[in-house]
Amino acid sequence: MLDLALLGSGGSMPMPDRFLSSLLIRYNGRKILIDCGEGTQVAMRILKWGFKSIDIICITHKHGDHILGLPGLLATIGNSGRTEPILIIGPNGIAKIIEGLILSLSYLPYDIKLMEVSNSSTRVNFFQEGVEIEEVYNNYSSNGDLIISTLELDHSAPCIGYSLYIPRSPKFNPEKATYYNIPKNLWKNLQRGETVTYEGNIIEPHMVLEGSRKGIKLSYITDTRPIRAIPDFIKESDLFICEGTYGDSEDIGKAIENKHMTFSEAAQLAYEGKVRELLLTHFSPAMEEPQGYIENAAKIFPNTIIGCDGYIKTLTYS
Amino acid sequence: MLDLALLGSGGSMPMPDRFLSSLLIRYNGRKILIDCGEGTQVAMRILKWGFKSIDIICITHKHGDHILGLPGLLATIGNSGRTEPILIIGPNGIAKIIEGLILSLSYLPYDIKLMEVSNSSTRVNFFQEGVEIEEVYNNYSSNGDLIISTLELDHSAPCIGYSLYIPRSPKFNPEKATYYNIPKNLWKNLQRGETVTYEGNIIEPHMVLEGSRKGIKLSYITDTRPIRAIPDFIKESDLFICEGTYGDSEDIGKAIENKHMTFSEAAQLAYEGKVRELLLTHFSPAMEEPQGYIENAAKIFPNTIIGCDGYIKTLTYS
Repeated sequence: MLDLALLGSGGSMPMPDRFLSSLLIRYNGRKILIDCGEGTQVAMRILKWGFKSIDIICITHKHGDHILGLPGLLATIGNSGRTEPILIIGPNGIAKIIEGLILSLSYLPYDIKLMEVSNSSTRVNFFQEGVEIEEVYNNYSSNGDLIISTLELDHSAPCIGYSLYIPRSPKFNPEKATYYNIPKNLWKNLQRGETVTYEGNIIEPHMVLEGSRKGIKLSYITDTRPIRAIPDFIKESDLFICEGTYGDSEDIGKAIENKHMTFSEAAQLAYEGKVRELLLTHFSPAMEEPQGYIENAAKIFPNTIIGCDGYIKTLTYS
Repeated sequence: MLDLALLGSGGSMPMPDRFLSSLLIRYNGRKILIDCGEGTQVAMRILKWGFKSIDIICITHKHGDHILGLPGLLATIGNSGRTEPILIIGPNGIAKIIEGLILSLSYLPYDIKLMEVSNSSTRVNFFQEGVEIEEVYNNYSSNGDLIISTLELDHSAPCIGYSLYIPRSPKFNPEKATYYNIPKNLWKNLQRGETVTYEGNIIEPHMVLEGSRKGIKLSYITDTRPIRAIPDFIKESDLFICEGTYGDSEDIGKAIENKHMTFSEAAQLAYEGKVRELLLTHFSPAMEEPQGYIENAAKIFPNTIIGCDGYIKTLTYS
C-alpha cells in the first residue's frame, strides 16, 4: 500500500492559489518526494505528513519551478531532527545546480548523496539509517522495497521521468509448507522471501511460493513532449501522473515551442501505456480552471483526473 | 512620498499563514525590495505592484529566510519583460551565495550587478535605464534621488541593516525669484536644484532656495542583537522597521542564543533612536499571535505597530 499527495498542481511560477507541481509518496513509514519548487515546504506543512522521514528526493530537471524549494526544504528537514542521509536523484548536471543552491545553508545535521542518472533502474531498500541502493536491470524484480526507474525526456533542459514500482512477493502455498513439515512460525519469513533453517534443513522460499504477482506501479512524467519511449516506460501503471500544461488542444503550438504537452497528448500516452488511471498536473498559470478542459483528455482516456493542490490517493495491490 | 508594503512578517521558515519578512518600497515609479525569502514573489503577486520596475534588491544576510526567494523572483522579473540591470546589495560574502542560487536560471534578459558592503552610504539616481550609484560620506546630502546607508549588525552570519533617505530640496523663495526677474516657467527647474540660463544670465538654485529641509527616512533592521550603533543609524527615522522575533521578554535567553531581539529590545532602540514610529516584523513561527505581546514594546515606545503580511503605509515629507 502506498499513499501519495499531489502537493501542488502548477507549472512555471508559484501562484497565490496554486502551489508548484510536486508529489509526496508515503510507503511503509518512509517518504519520497518528487520535485520541489518554491513553496513545496509550505504545501507539506499544510499536508501535515511531517518532514523527518523523507529518504529520497527525485528531481526531474533544473528549472526553478521544480527545484527552487529544495534549499529551504532541506533546512526545514534539518530542523526536524533528521540525521540519516538523504538521497537526491536527478538528471545529468543536477549535482552542480544543487550544490549551488545549498551554498547558503550553513549546516545540515545529515549528509546529502547526489546521484545523476539518465535511463536507469535502481533497487532501493529502506533502513532505519537511510536507504541502500543498487542498480538493477529488471524493473519487475521481486527483490527490494522499491524500484525507481528513470527515463530521459524531451524538454528544454535535461529532464527525466520517474517510475516507482513496489514489488509484490509471490503467493504462499500452505499445502506445500505442510507437505515439508515447516512449522507455522516460520511461514511469515518464507512469505517475505527469506531462506530459513529448521532442524538442520535449509528451506528456500521457492519451495512454498508460486507464481509472480504484479506490484504497485506509479509513474510521473513532466516536463516533456510526448516521446515514443513513454508508453512502454509507464506501461500498466496503477497511476500515471503526467503534465498537462495546456488544456486547450489549440495550444499545441505553444506546447511544441515550450516542450510541454496538451491534455489530449497526455491522455494519448495514458491510452497507449494501458495505465489504470491518469492524473493531470503542472497547469499553466494562464489556465485558471483546468477542470473545464477535462473532456479533451477524457474522450481519449476516460479514467482521467484533473489534479489539484492537496489531492490524496492510496494505491493498493490489485 | 514613498509607499511601502511589508510583504511578509515571519522569520525562520515560510508558514501557510505567514510569508517571510520582506519589504517592498515604491518611490517615483521605481521599486526597491529588501530581503527575499521563499515565497516573496507570491506575496508580491498578491500585492499587485508589479515586478518589472524593481531596480534594487537589498539583502540583509545569507540565511534562507532572507534570500531563498531570490532566484525565483529574478526569473519572474525576467518574464515581466525587464531588460534594465538590477542592482543587488548585500553584506560581504553574499555575491558567491547569490551566484550559486542563480546557477539554475538558464537565461535572464537583464544584467545583475552585485555589490558587497559593510558600513556604507550610497547615493542612488534612478534613470529609465536603471540606477546610477556613487559612494557618499554624508547621509543627509541633498543630491540624488535616494541615499542607501548600511550598518554591520550582530548576527550568526554577516548581516547588515539598511536606512533609506529621500532628500528634500530646500524651500523655494518666490520673492527672490521675482527680484531676479526669473520667468515663472523656469521656477520649477530651480526648485528641483537645476541651474538655468535666461537671456544670457546663469541663474543658480541657491539664489532662490533657502534653508535645508528634512527628507524621508526609513530604516530596516533584522536579524541582530540590539547593538550600540543602531540608535544613531536609525536616528529620527520616520519609520523604523525592526525584527521582533520574540514577543515575550522571558525569551531573552533564546534571543541572545540565536542573535535576535525581543519586542522590548526593539522598542528600546526605537526610543533611543528618537524615531517617529516602530513597525515590528520577523516573528518566530512559534508566536502565533504577535499582537498579544504589543504591550511589551508599547510601554517603552508607545508608537509601535505589530506588522502583518500585506501591511501598507505611505511616508510623506513632514
